[in-house]
Amino acid sequence: MSAGIVGGGIIGLAIAFELLERGVTDITVYDPDPARGAGLVAAGMLAPTAEANFGEEALQELMTASMRRWPGFAARVEARTGQTLGYRTEGTLLVALTGDDQAEIDRLVGYYRRAGAPIEPLTGRELREREPLLSPRVRGGAFAPGDHQVDPRLLLRALRSLPLRFAAEKIEDLAAVPHEPTIVATGASAAGLTGLPVRPVKGQLLRLRGPEPLLTHVVRGVANGRHVYLVPRSDGELVVGATEEERGEDRTVTAGGVLDLLRPAADLLPGVAELALAETLAGLRPGTPDNAPVLGRLPGGALVATGHHRNGVLLAPVTAEAIADLATRGTTGVSLAAFGATRFT
Amino acid sequence: MSAGIVGGGIIGLAIAFELLERGVTDITVYDPDPARGAGLVAAGMLAPTAEANFGEEALQELMTASMRRWPGFAARVEARTGQTLGYRTEGTLLVALTGDDQAEIDRLVGYYRRAGAPIEPLTGRELREREPLLSPRVRGGAFAPGDHQVDPRLLLRALRSLPLRFAAEKIEDLAAVPHEPTIVATGASAAGLTGLPVRPVKGQLLRLRGPEPLLTHVVRGVANGRHVYLVPRSDGELVVGATEEERGEDRTVTAGGVLDLLRPAADLLPGVAELALAETLAGLRPGTPDNAPVLGRLPGGALVATGHHRNGVLLAPVTAEAIADLATRGTTGVSLAAFGATRFT
Repeated sequence: MSAGIVGGGIIGLAIAFELLERGVTDITVYDPDPARGAGLVAAGMLAPTAEANFGEEALQELMTASMRRWPGFAARVEARTGQTLGYRTEGTLLVALTGDDQAEIDRLVGYYRRAGAPIEPLTGRELREREPLLSPRVRGGAFAPGDHQVDPRLLLRALRSLPLRFAAEKIEDLAAVPHEPTIVATGASAAGLTGLPVRPVKGQLLRLRGPEPLLTHVVRGVANGRHVYLVPRSDGELVVGATEEERGEDRTVTAGGVLDLLRPAADLLPGVAELALAETLAGLRPGTPDNAPVLGRLPGGALVATGHHRNGVLLAPVTAEAIADLATRGTTGVSLAAFGATRFT
Repeated sequence: MSAGIVGGGIIGLAIAFELLERGVTDITVYDPDPARGAGLVAAGMLAPTAEANFGEEALQELMTASMRRWPGFAARVEARTGQTLGYRTEGTLLVALTGDDQAEIDRLVGYYRRAGAPIEPLTGRELREREPLLSPRVRGGAFAPGDHQVDPRLLLRALRSLPLRFAAEKIEDLAAVPHEPTIVATGASAAGLTGLPVRPVKGQLLRLRGPEPLLTHVVRGVANGRHVYLVPRSDGELVVGATEEERGEDRTVTAGGVLDLLRPAADLLPGVAELALAETLAGLRPGTPDNAPVLGRLPGGALVATGHHRNGVLLAPVTAEAIADLATRGTTGVSLAAFGATRFT
């Protein structure tokens, strides 16, 4: 079997990994700039709780299924590559600054409960006992012990080191890819190649840096109505993300984007002000009309995995398993009925 | 005459220019990284109005004297180098967001009046007539027609192109400089070389970029107690500055510095949010105990020009004239009595 994967982001490379795990060794990844997709501007929060809008139950199940796979997936990638992924299990704190923000956190707590995910409400004081540098103004929140994190840059670096053939080619027509199976994992630019209604959803993200971590947990916060997440790395880096903007192919880092992230970050964690602004980034997530990914077979016969929106890192293990299953044996135990490529037509 | 200038920032290079103008052609500028001093993080506002604290009358006179020289200085630099300096004379708007901010602007207006500088109070509506993109919340302000601007990067580039000998050497001891006269213009790092009580005052500055200018005037604003200036360039760049921080030699761009600039900028001029954050910078201004520069002769015999704090660009013409006068004829018409190198001992 000679597999061709179009798109060398987290999804494409995770699929390549699962193909290698299944004994497929002849794999070509087509990407002019591999390991530089939306994963590069992801924070790596693994929060398997969808905002369970009508019709998103299937997505919730897929997220839960992928979360269950993450520890094993991480262990297998680390074993095969000899690299660490920065997988951490301290859990996430949900944090509200004001009374109105507390109402928004209460809504999120409801999603956790409906999803059957563990969640423990905490007072402001209880939050500060766990994270003493949170603002004294923080009003309350919750602890989500089941939400883990991984470092997407380490994940990309590990996957990039796999024994794959990389072709720095931009594929304009799937018919030009001389492989069976051909797998499309081009993220936000999948529309042109597949005809799928995938649109770019811009995300801006900051990397701050200090001498030592200000937090031990991931913080998912709301401050004066602005959502932000703060993801600490053990080397003192603090990732602050992420905006969600409908602006087409635009990858500009804007003053407004940076302000929308720094303001709530500093409101919740005043020590943020002292950190170095090490990097500002913008990337494009692949969005779909129903916010769920597209996983399966295109009418033309190629396999496709795109549309992961904000959940690409979380959904990588279940996506890679399902697509590798389809590629190698034509069927998979993962329930893909809700995610078909023809559901928008 | 063989002149040696230690320090190739705006002050050192402006002195070199005036020496060339006086017929001195053998000039060596010692700087490991010329044209990269505090001038690089200056916005180039030429506002000759000191906050006239007790004892700062002499500084006010020096600023006024330098401002009078700016048009001629700019014309001579442009004529000698064939480069433009971006000298603009639209004047500056002082802008207040809230009632408390208006009180601060009223205080500034008082300084202008005491300095005999033209200043015209304006209502919020009158401000928006001149700058339609200012926030509808802007309460009032004033127009300072005598405050001009220059582009410090263009100034540095023009001066850098002069026929000077550049030695990429870090001078640790003035005795090692084999020139007469030797002139010290090392800005924030002057203390080690001269024993003068010059300290670094950190300034952070942003360069934003859009398709076209949002402003035609320089705006000096106060928003919720935070001071900011917004300096438009004709190519669509908007310079936003500048913090003032006592942090020693630290040149880190921090989250707090960026936030302290972006927040008032976006409060006063909401369109700022759409601009690209093109560059973040930090530099070190040379501060002195009385906030005035040091201009004259060191006890050891070398000439010195440092301690210009926030006013290096404004004070460059009068500084360069005075020091070049002293170097070539031992005396100057510029009144330097208040700025002597021995006043701190």
